Amino acid sequence: MAKMSVTPWEVSGDINYDKLVKEFGLSKIDSKMLERIKKHTKELHPMLSRGIFFAHRDLNWILDEYEKGNKFFLYTGRAPSGPVHLGHILVWEFTKWLQEKFGVELWFQFPDEEKFLFKQNLTFEEIDKHLHDNMLDIIALGFDPNKTHFIIDTQHANLMYKEACKVAKKITFSNVKAVFGLTNESNIGSIFYTSMQAVPAFLPSVLKKKKIPCLIPHAVDQDPHFRLTRDILPKLDHYKPASIQSSFIPPLTGTKGKMSSSKESSIFMTDTPEEVKKKINKYAFSGGQPTTEEHRKKGGNPDVDVSFQYLKMFFEPDNKKLKKIEQDYKSGKMLTGELKQILIEKINNFLKQHQKKRKLAENQIDKFIYSA
Amino acid sequence: MAKMSVTPWEVSGDINYDKLVKEFGLSKIDSKMLERIKKHTKELHPMLSRGIFFAHRDLNWILDEYEKGNKFFLYTGRAPSGPVHLGHILVWEFTKWLQEKFGVELWFQFPDEEKFLFKQNLTFEEIDKHLHDNMLDIIALGFDPNKTHFIIDTQHANLMYKEACKVAKKITFSNVKAVFGLTNESNIGSIFYTSMQAVPAFLPSVLKKKKIPCLIPHAVDQDPHFRLTRDILPKLDHYKPASIQSSFIPPLTGTKGKMSSSKESSIFMTDTPEEVKKKINKYAFSGGQPTTEEHRKKGGNPDVDVSFQYLKMFFEPDNKKLKKIEQDYKSGKMLTGELKQILIEKINNFLKQHQKKRKLAENQIDKFIYSA
Repeated sequence: MAKMSVTPWEVSGDINYDKLVKEFGLSKIDSKMLERIKKHTKELHPMLSRGIFFAHRDLNWILDEYEKGNKFFLYTGRAPSGPVHLGHILVWEFTKWLQEKFGVELWFQFPDEEKFLFKQNLTFEEIDKHLHDNMLDIIALGFDPNKTHFIIDTQHANLMYKEACKVAKKITFSNVKAVFGLTNESNIGSIFYTSMQAVPAFLPSVLKKKKIPCLIPHAVDQDPHFRLTRDILPKLDHYKPASIQSSFIPPLTGTKGKMSSSKESSIFMTDTPEEVKKKINKYAFSGGQPTTEEHRKKGGNPDVDVSFQYLKMFFEPDNKKLKKIEQDYKSGKMLTGELKQILIEKINNFLKQHQKKRKLAENQIDKFIYSA
Repeated sequence: MAKMSVTPWEVSGDINYDKLVKEFGLSKIDSKMLERIKKHTKELHPMLSRGIFFAHRDLNWILDEYEKGNKFFLYTGRAPSGPVHLGHILVWEFTKWLQEKFGVELWFQFPDEEKFLFKQNLTFEEIDKHLHDNMLDIIALGFDPNKTHFIIDTQHANLMYKEACKVAKKITFSNVKAVFGLTNESNIGSIFYTSMQAVPAFLPSVLKKKKIPCLIPHAVDQDPHFRLTRDILPKLDHYKPASIQSSFIPPLTGTKGKMSSSKESSIFMTDTPEEVKKKINKYAFSGGQPTTEEHRKKGGNPDVDVSFQYLKMFFEPDNKKLKKIEQDYKSGKMLTGELKQILIEKINNFLKQHQKKRKLAENQIDKFIYSA
């Protein structure tokens, strides 16, 4: 087993989510919690029922408050440093569902300085280009423009920097050394950065001059930031933000680590149908057997098959259909090529719609960017 | 001799300016430099001829560029954390003179987060109050409203934070540990802060999209910030800022350290004539003899006499008059009480005018605060 590493800057190895729950001090999402959510949402999102969102902090408190009529707001984000790929949109699709089902506001942070500070050769010129493109992808996912507010760290610094200083005053270098593994040779911007990531968790409360509960849907690698945020916010007379954690969509090449834009084997939101077909056929790690004969006899292993995992995590919401594919693949009735073909069609249908909406998004950017 | 300490956060002990020149790597202002300045200014400000501004970096380069028609801009500042006292205005008065004589722009920074980050119990509510009051005092000094731009870190963060990140990326924790003595227990805002203090040294160049030389008049305790700034800026394709350093106005109680707003024995810009009289008579450290008889015989020592030093540093610009006072005091002809009386009158005249202009400043604040 490859050694597991899960930090905001690196995800690699075989990821043991139960171990992460323990190490990070998360609560697993159990059937009782699912029932409680369903009471409000009527149906459960497949990412919940299938355990893709697998853990949380203080979700019971969020629902207590909601039931008392005290609505929460959602906070998630994107550090623009490259094009959006399928690995990114998992959390956002689920966030959109939460926005719809609970009728709540979403504050979407674009920490455009984060990757600038953490990546040696990245410039703000490149980041600005990605920022614009990333916003198009996020708008195209269909968030409610009347309830969604984009905040961009360097462009909303008049609102954020002062609040970040209040957070920063409560965090020492020793803290960030321990939590993020920063060193004496880390640059002082990267050392300060986590204070900026904390701000959207209470900025709406500052702007509206009343305490509003915050729920942060995020991939589990971002947890160190929000652990620290949760420690600090009560000291500033803000609520501790609640959170809900997703697992990672694996890279095409296998079930270790997470899909990453630095790898060629990711599927980007702007890929053409031909590119998708080529990538899946060429790279998607297969749980099938070396020969058709052997596959018919022994069957495939859907647990390590990336195509099946993508269907499970995102592209086949219908439980019955998914079950059928799983059984057929396991039994050897369905070959890897056939499984891949199903996925290719699903992805290309999705991207066709997405790319259409992405074009229309250009005119909506201004509506989404927060202004007081 | 009390041990000398000169950092942006502490000035104490017997200050040996020659030693500082060596330690900080400054150039002394010599007669040749004074001549060169005089060529442009016609007359020399007493703070130059009397060595109150005693050192510089790259002032020859600033004048080279000026002579080529490439005007510099001035940058100085004030971290609002208390009321303005006489110790503060030394640098600003001289800065105003530079603005007038060279006809240049001044960028005046109010780093309102600095003292918040470095002082345990200071809140932004208190700082905001001081910020407003401090701006009144600075406007009252008579800067040209058409050539002076106030920038307030938290309110101009949209312009500053991104640029500060570019600076921060080039500075490690090891650097700020070495330069400022920060430790693992320093908060991460204080660690980041020096990046914000660097920004006004090149912000006008960014805004005007051309490289403009910068001259920073400052009290010598701020030098560590600007040493670091000078190291970084060429890496960002900006000019190294030039600088000119002043010595400190001593506290009323003696010639060690500097006047500090945390001490009761400072003279504030809003003090009444009675308060000034009382403070000078009660606290101003005297270089005179214990008894009148002894004083008449041995004479006083103007070098340690705070009242004489204030006249020399600020309140008696006339060289002949100052010389006469010095001689009379040294010879024993002038008593400490008489010397103090001269200073009290000078200060009260100055404050009377200042307080009048300070009232009128209220309506001018908006004109001074930078807006794009």
